[in-house]
Amino acid sequence: MTANSVCIDTAAFLANLQELRQIGAYKTGVHRPTYSPDDMQSRHWLMARMAECGLEPSIDGIGNVYGRHPGPGPHLLVGSHIETQNHAGWLDGALGVMAGIALARAGLPVDVVAFADEEGHFEGGFLGSRSIIGQLDDAEIDRSRNRTTGQPLHEALAAAGLAGLPRMQLEPGRHKGFFELHIEQGTQLEGQGLRAGVVSGIVAIWQFKIRFEGMQDHAGGTTMAERRDAGLSAVRLLAAIDQEFPRHIGERTVWTCGRITLEPGAPSIIPGVAEVLFQFRDIEMEVLERLHAVLVRLVQESNRRERCHATLTQMSRATPAICDPAMMRCVEQAAEAHAPGQWQVMPSGAGHDAQYMARVMPAVMLFTPSIGGISHHWAEDTAAADLALCCEILGDAAQKFLAV
Amino acid sequence: MTANSVCIDTAAFLANLQELRQIGAYKTGVHRPTYSPDDMQSRHWLMARMAECGLEPSIDGIGNVYGRHPGPGPHLLVGSHIETQNHAGWLDGALGVMAGIALARAGLPVDVVAFADEEGHFEGGFLGSRSIIGQLDDAEIDRSRNRTTGQPLHEALAAAGLAGLPRMQLEPGRHKGFFELHIEQGTQLEGQGLRAGVVSGIVAIWQFKIRFEGMQDHAGGTTMAERRDAGLSAVRLLAAIDQEFPRHIGERTVWTCGRITLEPGAPSIIPGVAEVLFQFRDIEMEVLERLHAVLVRLVQESNRRERCHATLTQMSRATPAICDPAMMRCVEQAAEAHAPGQWQVMPSGAGHDAQYMARVMPAVMLFTPSIGGISHHWAEDTAAADLALCCEILGDAAQKFLAV
Repeated sequence: MTANSVCIDTAAFLANLQELRQIGAYKTGVHRPTYSPDDMQSRHWLMARMAECGLEPSIDGIGNVYGRHPGPGPHLLVGSHIETQNHAGWLDGALGVMAGIALARAGLPVDVVAFADEEGHFEGGFLGSRSIIGQLDDAEIDRSRNRTTGQPLHEALAAAGLAGLPRMQLEPGRHKGFFELHIEQGTQLEGQGLRAGVVSGIVAIWQFKIRFEGMQDHAGGTTMAERRDAGLSAVRLLAAIDQEFPRHIGERTVWTCGRITLEPGAPSIIPGVAEVLFQFRDIEMEVLERLHAVLVRLVQESNRRERCHATLTQMSRATPAICDPAMMRCVEQAAEAHAPGQWQVMPSGAGHDAQYMARVMPAVMLFTPSIGGISHHWAEDTAAADLALCCEILGDAAQKFLAV
Repeated sequence: MTANSVCIDTAAFLANLQELRQIGAYKTGVHRPTYSPDDMQSRHWLMARMAECGLEPSIDGIGNVYGRHPGPGPHLLVGSHIETQNHAGWLDGALGVMAGIALARAGLPVDVVAFADEEGHFEGGFLGSRSIIGQLDDAEIDRSRNRTTGQPLHEALAAAGLAGLPRMQLEPGRHKGFFELHIEQGTQLEGQGLRAGVVSGIVAIWQFKIRFEGMQDHAGGTTMAERRDAGLSAVRLLAAIDQEFPRHIGERTVWTCGRITLEPGAPSIIPGVAEVLFQFRDIEMEVLERLHAVLVRLVQESNRRERCHATLTQMSRATPAICDPAMMRCVEQAAEAHAPGQWQVMPSGAGHDAQYMARVMPAVMLFTPSIGGISHHWAEDTAAADLALCCEILGDAAQKFLAV
C-alpha cells in the first residue's frame, strides 16, 4: 500500500454488511424483495448508517435512498442496490452500497446511493437508477406490476409509505464519476485464483420471444405427414442456432434459451403452439447486430422449410455500457498496488445500475470473486478477506480518480 | 344391401345419440368427466335405454354399465364408453355404446357395455375395461387420483354412489367377440373420401420421460465454456431423434414430444433441469422394440457427448392389439355391401377399450370419418349419414360373424 492510501475501516465495513444481513435473513442468505417490509426496514437502517458517517440521508418516491455529502466537491457517486432476489444472497447489491458507506466513513467526498429495484421484482426493472437520471416516466410507473404477485407498482409504493414523495434527480455536473463494487456472479476470478476484476463494460442483453404456430392434434390419429408440430419446429430452430451462432460470436458472447413452452403440453397431444425465450449478450454493439441478423435469417429459413410459422419478437435491445478508461486506469493501479498480479480486466455479463449511471457520467465497476460462482441463491458468498481487499482497492481508486 | 340384412332403426339410433348429447351439453359438444353428476346421469339414462330394448341393466363398483341379453347365445359384446374428455365431443365413445343399443334393438343377441373412464380422468386409465377382465387390482384403485383435481378415486366412487358395489367380471366363454364402433379421430378417411374404416389393430403407445440434469446458473455471468445447460442438451437429443427416427420406423409409426419443461424457466437463468415427455406408437411389437433401442442408443450418445446427464424412464410399454381376422372379414364384407369402394383397412393410432377386450376374446373396431379430423374438442362431429351407414355395417357384420 502506498503512503497516500485512503484508510478504510474494513472491520466496520464487514460489520455493517453482517448487520444488514440480519434484515430478512433466510438460511445463510436474505429475502428482501423490493418494497417488502424487510426491504423498507433495510432502507431506513441504511439512512441511519448514512447519517452516522456524516451524509444527509433521504428517500424518494421510487424508494431510492440517497446520502448526500455536505462538504465541497468534486464529488463521486458510489452505490448499488439493497433489495435482493427472492431467497438470494447477502452481498449482491448490498456490497456496493456498504462500500459507499465505507468510503464516506474514510472521509472521501462521496454521495452514497441505494437504487430501488435493480433486481426487477417489478416490470421495467432498474426503476431507481432509471428514475434518478430521468429515464423512467410516470406512464411506465402507472403500468408496472409485480412480476410474481401482479400487485400494481403504485399499490406497492403506497404500502411502503412512499406515495406522494417526489422522485429525486441527479444534480447535473455534481459527480465526477460513479463507482460500483459488486460480486462477479461467475467463476472467472475464482477459476484463475484472482481476487479482483476491473470491469471494462457491461454487456447488453437482447431478449427475444419466438412463437411457432402449428396445429394441435391427437398424437395417435395424425400421421407424421399431416402434422404441423409447433414443438418440433421450435426444436429445429434451436438446434440451428446451436450450430450457427458459434460462427458469428465475439470473444465473450453468451446466448441462452431459458424457457420452452409447448401448448397444451400433454403427452398425447401434438403441440399447436410453441413459445421460446431466447437472449444473447455481448459488450460490442457490432456483435449484437451481427447476431440479430443471424437470428432473423435462421427464423426466415425456418419459415421457408417448416409447416409452422415462426414469429420473432424483440423484447429488449439495450446498448452496452463501456466503462470510463480513466476510471479503469485508477482501479487497475489500485488493484495492482493491493493485489499485485491477482486481478484482471473483464466485462460484466450481468446488468447493473452502473449501466444507467454510465449514460450521464463516467462510471466503472469492480468485481469481487464469487465462491463457486453462486449467485441469486441464498448460498452466495465471498471470502471476507476478498471483500475487505476490494473495498480498499475501491477507496484508493476513488482517491486517485479525484486527483486526476 | 342383402336380403338377410339386419334391420337397424337408424332414426332411433340417431335420436338416442342426440338425447345423450343433451346431458352435460357444452357448445356443440359435451362435458361429462368420469363420475361427475352429468356422467352418472348419463349412466342411469343408458340403463333405461338398455331396459327399453330388452336388456337387463346393471352398474358395478367401478361405474361400468352393462346390459345383459336375456336370451340364448352365442352372444356378442358391443360397446365403448360414455364419459368424455373435458369440453369434448358428443360422439367419441357414446357412438359405440349407442350402436350396441341399436344392435340389441334390432334383435341381435348382444350384451352392451359402457366401460368407465376410458378417457383416463383418473390415474391408470381404462379403469372399466381393465376391471371387467380382471386386470385392475384394488391396490391400484386405492392409489389412483383424478389427474386434474387430485381427488382420490375412492372418494369419487363414493360421491357417485358406487361405494360398496361389486366389480363385475366378464363371464368366460359367454362372448364370441367384441365389436366397437368409434370415430376415426384423424383425417385419413375424410382425406380419401371414404366413409368407413375397418380397424386392423390398435397401436401400442410407449411413453417416456427424459430428464436432463445440468447446473442452474446466471445467463450473464457464466461463459459458454462453463455451462451445463440442461435445456440445450434436451434440444440436441430431440434434434437427433428427429434425424434418426425416420430411418427405423414402420409404415404408420408416429412419435411425439408433447412437453418440454425447463427449470426454472426464466429468461436470464441457464436451465438446471430439463424434462421431456416423448412417445412413439406402432402396431408392430418389432418396430416398437427397434425404436426403443434407437432411443436408448441416442440417450447413451447424448451422455457421451453432453455435459448434462440424461436419464430415460419408460412410463408405459403396452402391447399392440391385433384385430381378429375372421371378424375383420365380416366387417369388410358388410362395408363393401353398404358402401362399395368407400372403405379401407387401417390401424387405430389411438387407444380404445377394444385393446383390453382383445386380450380375452376376438375383437374388431369400425371407424366413422371425423369431420376435419377434430377430436377431444367440442367441435368434433361426423355426418349423420356416415353414422347411420356405419351402424348398419356394424349390424350386418355382427350377424355375419354370429353365423361363422
